[in-house]
Amino acid sequence: MSNAFLTRSVRFSASHRYFRPEWSEERNRETFGSCTNAPGHGHNYECVVTVSGPLDHETSMVLDLKVFDRILHDEIANRLDHQHINDAEEEFAYGKTIPTAEALAVFFFQKVAARLPEGVQLYKVRVQEDANLYADCLGPD
Amino acid sequence: MSNAFLTRSVRFSASHRYFRPEWSEERNRETFGSCTNAPGHGHNYECVVTVSGPLDHETSMVLDLKVFDRILHDEIANRLDHQHINDAEEEFAYGKTIPTAEALAVFFFQKVAARLPEGVQLYKVRVQEDANLYADCLGPD
Amino acid sequence: MSNAFLTRSVRFSASHRYFRPEWSEERNRETFGSCTNAPGHGHNYECVVTVSGPLDHETSMVLDLKVFDRILHDEIANRLDHQHINDAEEEFAYGKTIPTAEALAVFFFQKVAARLPEGVQLYKVRVQEDANLYADCLGPD
Amino acid sequence: MSNAFLTRSVRFSASHRYFRPEWSEERNRETFGSCTNAPGHGHNYECVVTVSGPLDHETSMVLDLKVFDRILHDEIANRLDHQHINDAEEEFAYGKTIPTAEALAVFFFQKVAARLPEGVQLYKVRVQEDANLYADCLGPD
Amino acid sequence: MSNAFLTRSVRFSASHRYFRPEWSEERNRETFGSCTNAPGHGHNYECVVTVSGPLDHETSMVLDLKVFDRILHDEIANRLDHQHINDAEEEFAYGKTIPTAEALAVFFFQKVAARLPEGVQLYKVRVQEDANLYADCLGPD
Amino acid sequence: MSNAFLTRSVRFSASHRYFRPEWSEERNRETFGSCTNAPGHGHNYECVVTVSGPLDHETSMVLDLKVFDRILHDEIANRLDHQHINDAEEEFAYGKTIPTAEALAVFFFQKVAARLPEGVQLYKVRVQEDANLYADCLGPD
Repeated sequence: MSNAFLTRSVRFSASHRYFRPEWSEERNRETFGSCTNAPGHGHNYECVVTVSGPLDHETSMVLDLKVFDRILHDEIANRLDHQHINDAEEEFAYGKTIPTAEALAVFFFQKVAARLPEGVQLYKVRVQEDANLYADCLGPD
Repeated sequence: MSNAFLTRSVRFSASHRYFRPEWSEERNRETFGSCTNAPGHGHNYECVVTVSGPLDHETSMVLDLKVFDRILHDEIANRLDHQHINDAEEEFAYGKTIPTAEALAVFFFQKVAARLPEGVQLYKVRVQEDANLYADCLGPD
Repeated sequence: MSNAFLTRSVRFSASHRYFRPEWSEERNRETFGSCTNAPGHGHNYECVVTVSGPLDHETSMVLDLKVFDRILHDEIANRLDHQHINDAEEEFAYGKTIPTAEALAVFFFQKVAARLPEGVQLYKVRVQEDANLYADCLGPD
Repeated sequence: MSNAFLTRSVRFSASHRYFRPEWSEERNRETFGSCTNAPGHGHNYECVVTVSGPLDHETSMVLDLKVFDRILHDEIANRLDHQHINDAEEEFAYGKTIPTAEALAVFFFQKVAARLPEGVQLYKVRVQEDANLYADCLGPD
Repeated sequence: MSNAFLTRSVRFSASHRYFRPEWSEERNRETFGSCTNAPGHGHNYECVVTVSGPLDHETSMVLDLKVFDRILHDEIANRLDHQHINDAEEEFAYGKTIPTAEALAVFFFQKVAARLPEGVQLYKVRVQEDANLYADCLGPD
Repeated sequence: MSNAFLTRSVRFSASHRYFRPEWSEERNRETFGSCTNAPGHGHNYECVVTVSGPLDHETSMVLDLKVFDRILHDEIANRLDHQHINDAEEEFAYGKTIPTAEALAVFFFQKVAARLPEGVQLYKVRVQEDANLYADCLGPD
């Protein structure tokens, strides 16, 4: 039986701010533009997660959707829905990682990969911030 | 020549919080759920504005798009893009109007109506908050 | 305070069949085309429900979303998701109403209208069957 | 049995140019901007047509989709798909009507209304030019 | 001249049921949830097919769209549109392969690959079941 | 810090014609169908550009969006928006390259690749012509 890729989307609404406390306000403004406005602005995020593996010979599934949905709820939607990302996750606290779409994709990749059952690989995590911007993480190099 | 309706969309990303300072935290939580989390969460808003009027006999237009776009930029996108709505607009300051999609539609209706040239009517303002929720204002009763 | 319209979408996946048992197979085929194939085909339905009313002076809401979502879940998604419509609802049993998008819109209008709190009017129920077809019911004439 | 509204979409790709031959090039440029560039630019148009009427007591349909699709193909897609609108339709020849979304909606309204069977009303024709602009015609005043 | 990838989408509406006749009803229910409801539910499927190859030096095409569309119609839409997948395809009959999105992607990959002209490779078949779920097949390992 | 992929979309409306002047009208018609109609038809194009690279350790960005947007505006939207592609770009003049989605993807890949700052790779250029057709270029073989 062939391998296949299975992709599931989950959505959350959150706010974030691009701000480095060790920089001057001018440097923050010049680097981040209006993304540095306090206390932050927000988006309807869509997080699109792709796993790969062989199809089960009885169920023809790569991964049980109940298991997949539980992981995506715990690691993505439940973490950040209706939250301010810099406040809600230590990783994105001021002075640490700026919560760009790229950094969120890397963060979710690590969280989801740690939860997948044996035999299923995490192929990609995409974080779509708005209709014209998204970032993908395919794992550590 | 017939009347027609012309509709233009504009997008902005902003954050907001549902919170009444004269209420207890419990009442805020019970009424607004996770929408009362401080300092607020955000959305990619789409604001869809419909005007009506006769077609100009030379240009076949209800309203010059350059004029329409200028109004929508000034009154909608430029007011709120990359802002926290409760902070950016006095109307939605804490203790005043809660920035629901319904209230934003009413607010933008008043702002846009005041700017339209003579002979063009504002028919509708729609504020779409996410893929599953929007509100419309058709003007004062 | 102005009136406004609030619209909420709910989705379900279901199957249906167009078939009149009192007609010959030829007449069913001629009238309904491939929609008469047994045991039926299916769609990802989106049901879009619009209510109207005054904005509450404290919450700026036309209708509490928790109440709205409960009604839409009970009367629409929970009735028909992952069901065969002709089997699941007496109204659409073979020999009764053909489950077109038009008939579903009329059916859901009656069900939702009976559940709304006082002071809130049901304005419209839209049933979208696929990317190119939808039907609206605005209530009894 | 209630009345209902049935809506069907049809798509076509075409080009058009905004140009009044009796005006100077400067006036064309000032009024129409880059829309006056020769020989024209193009869009993927979506034309969304809504009819209303009672549900047939046997088929639960407002209008037979085979009939509806034939009309939309003949009067909209077959007229303009892969055409230059100013060249393909006498109504939009240079010196006559400028092919704005508003004017196309009025034009298609007249064409479709003339073809509908008795007992079915044409309620609306929408012409969507791109993701941020559309026009509606609800018939002659 | 460079290689490129060309992608074409085709849509069909069908129903399916997840059911293993050699299992108890309890095991079917526990494994497949409401997807095991008889006689099945349905979806608006979108099948997205990607081929790759060099651009023809005269037409700048990877594959003639008339040829591509004929293959997709024959092998995908015409097989399953307005059908119950378990009934319409021997591969998905009860007791054989469960018609998940993953299994459909593998199935269509084999069917389309067998029809492509020499010099054109089938790169990917995607089967999108609803707005939040799709599966990809990139061919046999 | 991991590598990631960042994707940005830009839109333009343009017209094009498939026509080889050294061929007979019959051969043009037979090969290109209605795409050979003079003076051409049009589309709302979406061009989706993906770059890859390490995340900057201070900004968590693969590429500054101001820089990315400037390149996409200069090399894509500003070249072709509201233009006739065969007229506007020497590469697509009659007698040279036919402006298919495949050829446009190859063309934009070369233009964008030449503008990216050091350390950022161009991974993919996608040109989406309508809802059912797109082409990708991943660079020279």
